[in-house]
Amino acid sequence: MRWAVLLAGGSGTRFWPLSTPETPKQLLPLSGAGSTAEESIERLAGLVPRERVIVVAGASLATRLRSLLNLPAENFLIEPRPASTGPALIWATWEARRRDPDAEVLSLHADWVVGDAAAFRRTADHALAAARTHDRLVTVGVVPSRPETGYGYIVPGAPLDQGVRTVARFSEKPDAATALDLMAAGALWNSGLFAWTAERLLAEASRHTPEVSAALPALEAGDVADFFLGVTPISIDVGLLERSGAVAVVSGAFAWDDVGTWQALARVRPKDPNGNVVVGPAVVLDSHDCIVWSERDPIVVSGVQDLVVVQANGRILIMPTERAAAMKQLLDALPPAVRDIE
Amino acid sequence: MRWAVLLAGGSGTRFWPLSTPETPKQLLPLSGAGSTAEESIERLAGLVPRERVIVVAGASLATRLRSLLNLPAENFLIEPRPASTGPALIWATWEARRRDPDAEVLSLHADWVVGDAAAFRRTADHALAAARTHDRLVTVGVVPSRPETGYGYIVPGAPLDQGVRTVARFSEKPDAATALDLMAAGALWNSGLFAWTAERLLAEASRHTPEVSAALPALEAGDVADFFLGVTPISIDVGLLERSGAVAVVSGAFAWDDVGTWQALARVRPKDPNGNVVVGPAVVLDSHDCIVWSERDPIVVSGVQDLVVVQANGRILIMPTERAAAMKQLLDALPPAVRDIE
Repeated sequence: MRWAVLLAGGSGTRFWPLSTPETPKQLLPLSGAGSTAEESIERLAGLVPRERVIVVAGASLATRLRSLLNLPAENFLIEPRPASTGPALIWATWEARRRDPDAEVLSLHADWVVGDAAAFRRTADHALAAARTHDRLVTVGVVPSRPETGYGYIVPGAPLDQGVRTVARFSEKPDAATALDLMAAGALWNSGLFAWTAERLLAEASRHTPEVSAALPALEAGDVADFFLGVTPISIDVGLLERSGAVAVVSGAFAWDDVGTWQALARVRPKDPNGNVVVGPAVVLDSHDCIVWSERDPIVVSGVQDLVVVQANGRILIMPTERAAAMKQLLDALPPAVRDIE
Repeated sequence: MRWAVLLAGGSGTRFWPLSTPETPKQLLPLSGAGSTAEESIERLAGLVPRERVIVVAGASLATRLRSLLNLPAENFLIEPRPASTGPALIWATWEARRRDPDAEVLSLHADWVVGDAAAFRRTADHALAAARTHDRLVTVGVVPSRPETGYGYIVPGAPLDQGVRTVARFSEKPDAATALDLMAAGALWNSGLFAWTAERLLAEASRHTPEVSAALPALEAGDVADFFLGVTPISIDVGLLERSGAVAVVSGAFAWDDVGTWQALARVRPKDPNGNVVVGPAVVLDSHDCIVWSERDPIVVSGVQDLVVVQANGRILIMPTERAAAMKQLLDALPPAVRDIE
């Protein structure tokens, strides 16, 4: 049967002061009505039923996620410590196989905004079918719309089937010139949407990912804490996909955004005629290309451009949109009493 | 004896959202610890005692002013309706003469920031003495530090005495080119600081200001409401000083600012090394020439310049400093629910 693993961790600094450690990006209604975590599960309707959606997250988010997401209690896998996506996905896949030896697994992240849910499901269905047919770990590549330097790229190789190709190589976070070259060469964004059979994933991990597979006996013994003590944090990309020869790529024909920065809201939210994204009580006059988000107090913005203005959680942030990518440096420069939101 | 009349009216739109109809500019601690109204009275220490300071304001401010300013109850003259400075000053001068037939009156505004209180007192003392000696209405002119188009100018005429000259003419709110010409010609800013004997002021008003003097019998009859019904709103400058030949000007040797806009805070408040004025909990990074005022929430400003950022009374305002002079137009563009502060 088909299973989905939703990676719902994430520390929530990119959308400060709206995001906090207790309410990171994936719990925020960035694209509209619901949180991206809720929307991610709703998007699977007809493809994977809720009782087969497994959520992986840290303990700090467990209570919030359980109350937010209408899923069986045993489907929440709570990491005792952060260890990147490798241990999380290998654990969740192992858990799916424990419940269903024939499990096919779709892996996705809880913080995506997707433009066309039906196209997303068609692609995911295609990836799951290809994972079974070709017995490979299948990545979904999204056609790039800009030479983004913050993403990983997949360079497709030889055709395996209709719309399915081998992977020639991966290229993680290239510089701007390389990103342009990759786009020109037909490389795809590595969306983080993956499909595999549990059987193949665990077999490949045993061969290629000793950082995690060496600790699997702890899981067999039912000791999650011991498993996490035994693993070395490593991403699924570095720890397995880039090492295994048994990978493939299918192309995703849907608008996809991981909404990585305040500036990204301009891609996933409706804009006024002057290119401003305005959320909450705000009046924007004679201004263009601003992101204005108010959680409570009316914000009046007059005569400015390319600014991010946010009021949330008792803090106010004003910066040029171009600085949105450097939130970590900004937060590092703040005194803890201002940075840390209770 | 010497009396002072403090004009404490004013509608409080220039410092929105910090200023409100109930807490206009003169009740705000714009320059530092106390409100400019309090500071205006303290600045008179040694020149005019508190029991001879008369405050004129509208009913909406009466309660706040009475509790803020430690003055005798009978010294608060409450205008039943706004009627500009002509009726206010003629009424207050009439009241001073009723209590003290020999009254000398110093007229000042409650929203000034003055750099050097001792120099201010020396100038006021000089103006009061000149008003008695020359039996004229004495204006105080401040040497301009910039070609300000928002002020009135006084062009001095012939010398009357040490530091006392006649007035050749007044020039109200000149355009920028005219303001430069006026500065070059030695014109002075009309500060609004005036000195006169009550006797001379009331005699001149009887001759030149029928818009107000025709209603004086109502005051004689003890009916303030009737007096205000009978006057035509007119400023003391237009209604009397520009019409009377019995005027003079003395030069003020003190830094004076009416703090007319958010931008003006940069002239009266200490700045950080990058020219930012920061009041309240705020962190200003990689930014210059900003005015940041927070009443409550920490504001983080990063990578911007020449911005006014204010959080006050449940509103947040962001605009370029150059827009500070056009607050009225900005407020006119706001929906009442955002503009009107409860």
